[in-house]
Amino acid sequence: MDGLIVRGARLWQGPVADIAIAGGRIAAIGRELPAHAGSDTLEARGCLVMPGLVDGHAHLDKTLWGTPWHSHRAGPTLLERIDNERRVLGELGLSPQRQSARLLRHLVARGTTHVRTHVDVGPDMQLAHLHGVQAMCEAHREFIDVQIVAFPQTGVMRQPGTLDLLDQAALDGAQVIGGLDPIGVDNDPHGQLNAIFAIAERRGCGIDIHLHDRGETGAATIEMIAERTRALGLAGRVALSHAFCLGMLEPARLDAIVALLRDNDIAVMTHAPSGGTPFPPIRLLAERGVRLFTGSDGVRDCWSPLNTGDMLERAYLLAYLSGFRDDAGLELALTMATHGGAQVMGAEGYGLDVGCAADLVVVQAENAAEAVAMHPLRRWVIKRGRVVARDGSAKLPALD
Amino acid sequence: MDGLIVRGARLWQGPVADIAIAGGRIAAIGRELPAHAGSDTLEARGCLVMPGLVDGHAHLDKTLWGTPWHSHRAGPTLLERIDNERRVLGELGLSPQRQSARLLRHLVARGTTHVRTHVDVGPDMQLAHLHGVQAMCEAHREFIDVQIVAFPQTGVMRQPGTLDLLDQAALDGAQVIGGLDPIGVDNDPHGQLNAIFAIAERRGCGIDIHLHDRGETGAATIEMIAERTRALGLAGRVALSHAFCLGMLEPARLDAIVALLRDNDIAVMTHAPSGGTPFPPIRLLAERGVRLFTGSDGVRDCWSPLNTGDMLERAYLLAYLSGFRDDAGLELALTMATHGGAQVMGAEGYGLDVGCAADLVVVQAENAAEAVAMHPLRRWVIKRGRVVARDGSAKLPALD
Repeated sequence: MDGLIVRGARLWQGPVADIAIAGGRIAAIGRELPAHAGSDTLEARGCLVMPGLVDGHAHLDKTLWGTPWHSHRAGPTLLERIDNERRVLGELGLSPQRQSARLLRHLVARGTTHVRTHVDVGPDMQLAHLHGVQAMCEAHREFIDVQIVAFPQTGVMRQPGTLDLLDQAALDGAQVIGGLDPIGVDNDPHGQLNAIFAIAERRGCGIDIHLHDRGETGAATIEMIAERTRALGLAGRVALSHAFCLGMLEPARLDAIVALLRDNDIAVMTHAPSGGTPFPPIRLLAERGVRLFTGSDGVRDCWSPLNTGDMLERAYLLAYLSGFRDDAGLELALTMATHGGAQVMGAEGYGLDVGCAADLVVVQAENAAEAVAMHPLRRWVIKRGRVVARDGSAKLPALD
Repeated sequence: MDGLIVRGARLWQGPVADIAIAGGRIAAIGRELPAHAGSDTLEARGCLVMPGLVDGHAHLDKTLWGTPWHSHRAGPTLLERIDNERRVLGELGLSPQRQSARLLRHLVARGTTHVRTHVDVGPDMQLAHLHGVQAMCEAHREFIDVQIVAFPQTGVMRQPGTLDLLDQAALDGAQVIGGLDPIGVDNDPHGQLNAIFAIAERRGCGIDIHLHDRGETGAATIEMIAERTRALGLAGRVALSHAFCLGMLEPARLDAIVALLRDNDIAVMTHAPSGGTPFPPIRLLAERGVRLFTGSDGVRDCWSPLNTGDMLERAYLLAYLSGFRDDAGLELALTMATHGGAQVMGAEGYGLDVGCAADLVVVQAENAAEAVAMHPLRRWVIKRGRVVARDGSAKLPALD
């Protein structure tokens, strides 16, 4: 019997109750549930229980996690940062496989039970990152669910051969096809978008496009993405990552773009970027019915040392940068770091209801708003009914 | 013998060494120092040691820390928030004495060894908050050093009687006289500034003025403050808190205002405000020689639920909002949360040198940049040579 009972847990948006887990799923929720023979018990003593945190935008393959401190020296532009990364990763010669394993363990310790990771695919590394990350995700499948986006970090049309690699990545198991600034990086929006939508349609993949292009350049790109989403019947399968432009548009233009996002069910990911970079007005988008999620982005990598991989702290940053002080705002931030990402990933059985997968996080907090405001260490992280982390430390077998 | 040795500590801006502590001070720093009979030993194992964190802007008397979650419902303007606070605090009937004790203990747990707190003084509470906070600070003097600013939260000239109370507060032991938006709140900048500078000069106090007024209103106020600082010879004794206007000025105007700050040694406190509120360009100010510090501002109070009272996390927010990714930027943020505040407070014997007060924080980090980027729990907090917190929990006698 592999059962577990979490006693006296304060359910997010619910009462204090016991949660009985069996076969990796929530078997019952109620008061004073009977313990089955062999069940372990966790005394939550009024701690908040929420479903597992969802990191909807990671870059597992490129993290420097677990290596000596890397002093950031990249220039400020996107292309400078791309070139700097190629150079540094080439010098360090790290294994994407080992690095992704190192970061996955840290994410587990911080309560992440599901992650969508963008994995670099391009002429330089071919499919090596993809295969390395896939191997590690398979090795950690009991601890965390991973969805892979085949990500053309160096561009699509400007890097001949990339399209064939993206197509092969889909055949090799990448569930989502990525894109990158069809105008700013490729200067060929129709070329890039037609090509990646074609692969997605042919291979039954979702789409998740990094869109850093600002202002009207970004807005025009969203129009082109929405047009293809509608034409190919891909509503609910397409996401925009970052979409800084949504934080920069005049109200009437924003209204029109937001309507396109909602009507075509295009999801928006923001990690609340640093340094005053504009970012989507998330409360407005939520009120208009746009699907929202968040992610850690690159943790300790060549892009920035500032992301910690802690999705509860990420919810806090979303609230802090958005100026949310009310409970509804704090809950919106937490929803983006939980249900929002789970919906975009299509996570099976996600939630806090009977029958859901027993992927749970327990923290010392009176309610969801306090969990975000204080983002305390995770007391317990439960994946498929097993405790995989306790007080901030993952309980996993050692890495080879 | 009350000695302590911290072995194998990585000194901020120094090598790995042992730190010997005796009589509450750093007695020696070196390799393989001998232990004296009766000394305790902490094995730092390469953890980073920095001087105690300094919270240069707190509001101990008004925190809701330790009480049930308070859902934020205040309106967005300064005056709405002031009125809301009066109403909520009146309804809750909390003791400033008990609340300040609750928060002080949390600050100790997070590694703060020095705090400057603004304490409300005005016609409604008279000097009750001041005396309550003073009693608790005296009761906690072994654990944390507190400097008190007598703070006219409801205004000075618009609240008859406030000036007499500020003067009496100085006589009763407040070390600093506060002010509040001489234009925006009082609409009488000469009146407020002349009056509070007169009290400061008469009583030998410093000055710390909350300046939320934006743009040119704020800039003009700084000119008036600089003029009085120079006239009264108060260089080095005056601070501006928040100074949002510094994040909003055209370059030439900013240059002129920054020169006034530097020439009159007026310090600037920013806590990196939430919600896209403009804030001072700290790297530019540091390069121009302006003294900078930071603080937690109100922790879990009627103004916001977002501030956690963790000054290492605060340094992270400074870096995050400023867009610092390089080591120098991260170190600047940490300096504001340590030496910067200590200088403004005139903290005796602050630092990591032999002879300094043994007020130390130990964290798992390779260097200062990593300490800010990860802001890990404090492994040990040492105040005057005694361990007062360990792994995030304060080791203090229970509150009555």
